[in-house]
Amino acid sequence: MLIVMKSDATESDIRRVEEIIEKLGYRPHTMPGAARTAIGVTGNPGAIDPTHFENLPGVADAIRVTKQYKLISKDLRPEKSVIKVGNATIGGNELAIIAGPCAVETVEQVFSAAEAVAKSGAKFFRGGAFKPRTSPYAFQGKGEDGLKILAEVRNQFGLNIVTEAMDERGVDLVEKYGDCIQIGARNMQNFSLLKYVGQTRKPVLLKRGLSATLDEFLLAAEYIMAEGNYDVILCERGIRTFGTHARNTMDLSVVPAVQKLTHLPIIVDPSHGTGRNYMVNPLARAGVAVGADGLIIEVHPCPEEALCDGAQALTLEQYSELYTQVNAIYEILAKEEMAIALA
Amino acid sequence: MLIVMKSDATESDIRRVEEIIEKLGYRPHTMPGAARTAIGVTGNPGAIDPTHFENLPGVADAIRVTKQYKLISKDLRPEKSVIKVGNATIGGNELAIIAGPCAVETVEQVFSAAEAVAKSGAKFFRGGAFKPRTSPYAFQGKGEDGLKILAEVRNQFGLNIVTEAMDERGVDLVEKYGDCIQIGARNMQNFSLLKYVGQTRKPVLLKRGLSATLDEFLLAAEYIMAEGNYDVILCERGIRTFGTHARNTMDLSVVPAVQKLTHLPIIVDPSHGTGRNYMVNPLARAGVAVGADGLIIEVHPCPEEALCDGAQALTLEQYSELYTQVNAIYEILAKEEMAIALA
Amino acid sequence: MLIVMKSDATESDIRRVEEIIEKLGYRPHTMPGAARTAIGVTGNPGAIDPTHFENLPGVADAIRVTKQYKLISKDLRPEKSVIKVGNATIGGNELAIIAGPCAVETVEQVFSAAEAVAKSGAKFFRGGAFKPRTSPYAFQGKGEDGLKILAEVRNQFGLNIVTEAMDERGVDLVEKYGDCIQIGARNMQNFSLLKYVGQTRKPVLLKRGLSATLDEFLLAAEYIMAEGNYDVILCERGIRTFGTHARNTMDLSVVPAVQKLTHLPIIVDPSHGTGRNYMVNPLARAGVAVGADGLIIEVHPCPEEALCDGAQALTLEQYSELYTQVNAIYEILAKEEMAIALA
Amino acid sequence: MLIVMKSDATESDIRRVEEIIEKLGYRPHTMPGAARTAIGVTGNPGAIDPTHFENLPGVADAIRVTKQYKLISKDLRPEKSVIKVGNATIGGNELAIIAGPCAVETVEQVFSAAEAVAKSGAKFFRGGAFKPRTSPYAFQGKGEDGLKILAEVRNQFGLNIVTEAMDERGVDLVEKYGDCIQIGARNMQNFSLLKYVGQTRKPVLLKRGLSATLDEFLLAAEYIMAEGNYDVILCERGIRTFGTHARNTMDLSVVPAVQKLTHLPIIVDPSHGTGRNYMVNPLARAGVAVGADGLIIEVHPCPEEALCDGAQALTLEQYSELYTQVNAIYEILAKEEMAIALA
Repeated sequence: MLIVMKSDATESDIRRVEEIIEKLGYRPHTMPGAARTAIGVTGNPGAIDPTHFENLPGVADAIRVTKQYKLISKDLRPEKSVIKVGNATIGGNELAIIAGPCAVETVEQVFSAAEAVAKSGAKFFRGGAFKPRTSPYAFQGKGEDGLKILAEVRNQFGLNIVTEAMDERGVDLVEKYGDCIQIGARNMQNFSLLKYVGQTRKPVLLKRGLSATLDEFLLAAEYIMAEGNYDVILCERGIRTFGTHARNTMDLSVVPAVQKLTHLPIIVDPSHGTGRNYMVNPLARAGVAVGADGLIIEVHPCPEEALCDGAQALTLEQYSELYTQVNAIYEILAKEEMAIALA
Repeated sequence: MLIVMKSDATESDIRRVEEIIEKLGYRPHTMPGAARTAIGVTGNPGAIDPTHFENLPGVADAIRVTKQYKLISKDLRPEKSVIKVGNATIGGNELAIIAGPCAVETVEQVFSAAEAVAKSGAKFFRGGAFKPRTSPYAFQGKGEDGLKILAEVRNQFGLNIVTEAMDERGVDLVEKYGDCIQIGARNMQNFSLLKYVGQTRKPVLLKRGLSATLDEFLLAAEYIMAEGNYDVILCERGIRTFGTHARNTMDLSVVPAVQKLTHLPIIVDPSHGTGRNYMVNPLARAGVAVGADGLIIEVHPCPEEALCDGAQALTLEQYSELYTQVNAIYEILAKEEMAIALA
Repeated sequence: MLIVMKSDATESDIRRVEEIIEKLGYRPHTMPGAARTAIGVTGNPGAIDPTHFENLPGVADAIRVTKQYKLISKDLRPEKSVIKVGNATIGGNELAIIAGPCAVETVEQVFSAAEAVAKSGAKFFRGGAFKPRTSPYAFQGKGEDGLKILAEVRNQFGLNIVTEAMDERGVDLVEKYGDCIQIGARNMQNFSLLKYVGQTRKPVLLKRGLSATLDEFLLAAEYIMAEGNYDVILCERGIRTFGTHARNTMDLSVVPAVQKLTHLPIIVDPSHGTGRNYMVNPLARAGVAVGADGLIIEVHPCPEEALCDGAQALTLEQYSELYTQVNAIYEILAKEEMAIALA
Repeated sequence: MLIVMKSDATESDIRRVEEIIEKLGYRPHTMPGAARTAIGVTGNPGAIDPTHFENLPGVADAIRVTKQYKLISKDLRPEKSVIKVGNATIGGNELAIIAGPCAVETVEQVFSAAEAVAKSGAKFFRGGAFKPRTSPYAFQGKGEDGLKILAEVRNQFGLNIVTEAMDERGVDLVEKYGDCIQIGARNMQNFSLLKYVGQTRKPVLLKRGLSATLDEFLLAAEYIMAEGNYDVILCERGIRTFGTHARNTMDLSVVPAVQKLTHLPIIVDPSHGTGRNYMVNPLARAGVAVGADGLIIEVHPCPEEALCDGAQALTLEQYSELYTQVNAIYEILAKEEMAIALA
């Protein structure tokens, strides 16, 4: 059930609808929009009788939603969501670049990367303190010590910190030290973790699973939102196919598909999406050209010494070249008013 | 590093090797075998000097292991592992049948299924109290109440309970009420959860992820074993491909591949592996013929009323027919001494 | 349009319906069955008015077919088709084993394999004279000379010859020298070739393409049948997935799916389906257990010297072991009257 | 074997090397380059002794090639190949746009599309007279009549005609009426057809198969070139994955991969690559941004009436918008001298 308020509905009209929803034992999700507010209802086991709402003051319409997803949909919120991450935003009129090393290794490594990232003009820094590694014997990340280094990067360079959490303890720590909680591809359907981050008030960067369909990806976002956290940023990071020339196959068609169905921003990750240094820049350009809201890029001052995923990390020089190229394309898209097509 | 003891090594020889490993700051994993004991070493950041061990009494060999996995490998334990689950075993000379409904719904539903399963001769009962559902609005399972019903099934029918946990709280509860902790396909690379179940002393049924390679699957088992829990049963449950005639594509070639590399038992799940009622029996027969150690099968007294995955559940009659057919094939394999080829 | 004749319809009733179909400019496909004859109509651009037929003598029903396929479907022919290949059949009450080397190399190699195949009791011999190789620089087969060797095998050992054609010239030659024309996976959607073999009167073994959906596979058979050749045997030979432990992933669920929809026999190819010697026997057993009508197996007197696909060829001893095992399973299926379930 | 000539080698030096290759019973493939000529050798069953060549006048080096492909490789020709198609080129310093309807239907439909394509500035026209359709009952194309309409388009609008052939007869006809022979995805490993077009002297547009690896794709091109036709243009048209939001998954990472290994131009097909009208423009932009040499686009004056693939065809207005946008991106890439990175 989706209750669409009139454009002149008052705060108290909205509050009254919320109260009725709560009294029925369900949960209201209120989404203010440019033209009007809509209120999603979740928690109802079956259809709700629309007559509960349609004659209330301020209510324009009460619509039965038969689709699997409610909160992510454009029915609930026709305008694109702009997500605040620290002191910057993702999904607005600026290309969001999140750059940094795969893993936090040392203060020197992190600061050297952060300096280059800040200098480029990017506003977000990435770096993992908890690393989901295929082998139990591979480097598992520096944990809380790593997060402290990242917090120091924010203080010193003004960059907003995006970093992964793999479990509840990790979420608590990232909430404390970071600005955006990343949920990795392998945890995209870790539903307990999704519910847990849904209860925080930090924005969440949700990566698409290696073999997730679009529906599964969107419903993972819906899991987070159903708990009350509406600040979800989607991220395409490559899917698994039979191909071997790249580590994964970037599925850029998911960008227009997401934009058609949802109000959430979506960024792309050409570093994990290709796993090959020489492919990162071309696929980053493609990601911006297809209409993504941003990029997440691995940069390492010395890729050949990286403890994790060195093969795909850009050098600081390569990163700088990428930054220039993708922004040139982004500007063209804006200038030619392709924005219409991207919406 | 793998330390192979002589066949006449004493308990104190073994203990001494373990002490040296611990003194070096690493972790010994002692695996007694039919002919000899082997001790795996984990926790070492780099290569270990074999001279620490090779001249000790009772030591036959100290072998550097360059492969990614140690504890699952036949190098460590050439004989097949037979895993004790409650009062029965998986991996020995009997076909293990785990049957029951997808989800625990009501006492009546569960008991009706359990009666048929017990009557058939099967020794294991399945049923989910925590359900990983793609949509946050789908039935999420009955939680601890469901587990209590399952514990009652064990008391009344003598069946051993296999049931899924999705997070640490769930693991604690399954440890309390069940006999075997199932880790679902979507959590196969939830590394925090793998470590957590590695610290329990209940056997673990580990399902292959929807797009997991064999290496990733085996390393997920290695994660559990590296924490000290060696009772891992693998389960092929279908992978994701372009095909649409079945819900997933069962990859039976993984059975001989697993048997070639590891000492762990492997079972197959034709219910999730096909998602189609009419395919379950044929694929169950195929799973036994390919050499699997067992089957996990969804049975529901009334599939068309199931709250979850009804399309793939067998009726009690269909289950009984399947039970007869797969055991006939299993006996033929044994009789013709195909066991050799299966080992 | 499908015209179902009454069980007591006469030859002249049938002929009259055929004439009307031809007069309308379409093509009749008459399929005699155990209980009744059905006549498929193809070539019609849109729906046909059933009143043309429903009042004719001997006509039981005139059914509009909205499905994409007509001639392969059980609507047209509810009984399973038994295909005559040389002096034997595929699809009847006997497991069909087609064995032999990947490629015809020398008289000695072929005769040595043929002797073992004939001795085992198998009735079909395989061997390629035209080899579809990924590289233009790899061995391309011995051409007509190879076919002459195969024809000699038939004369000497009484085996029926199944061999691949890659183009029209090849089809003409296989028609001359062989008993069954194999269309390889890479040509499954070579529609010109399908039409061409549809005009021959030799049975066709049609292999599923590496990434063919079930619908595409069945429509490829429909292409052949629409030209008037109804003797099509389907073959599952493994699909392409992300997996690397086997060369392909055998999709055994396609066997019950095919049996549900069509009257055509289906066999499986565990040699190409796995590409690994040690997997061939387990997957052959699985193929028989799932309900396939036969197997196609690569056997080579000396696999390590094979010019093509040696890694998957069985030795003569391994082949003999496989033959015993799969027949034991086949007999059990028959004995337990699983045949009902397989139909 | 690859023989690299000195930069000052004479025509007669080159001729002499060719003669020796021919005398040895092999085939020379001479590729003139900007700085030097290289001569590939094919047809040799094993390694060739380099001493046959290395002391000849004009020879700089004789290199053993262990890779599977020779003629497509940058070792043979370090500069990018610019392919002449009719009166224009693909692979040079201009974005090649090939546009037109999926299938030739009527003179009016074709001319209406051709007018818009010519007006946009594009130099190539597409349209199928032979259509590879999954179902034998679907529209199969207008055949030679369709080709005559296309030839008329060339006469009237000066557009160069790219059109598919599915068999030898079709190749002969396309050679007569068209400018570039398209080999469709389903025929990418129709090796007989590849050899046949290798013997024509018309350029070939080779589409990647639905599940072709990069190696298979490149070796298909090598098949054509090994017959002496070096004018091959590669085309990425989407691969088959588990995804359902688009008809296929465009794998843009294949573009930098091809450019790293070969001297051949590569274009992308966002129409078949997505199968969704609203995705064509975004993915076309991405294809240009990733560095492709061109695009092939389906345009139809009235997509909803198309006999084939209407769901993905652009209207004339949408095509015009796409044309502007992709050229704006192409110019930016050139301006910023990204060309270096693209090479």
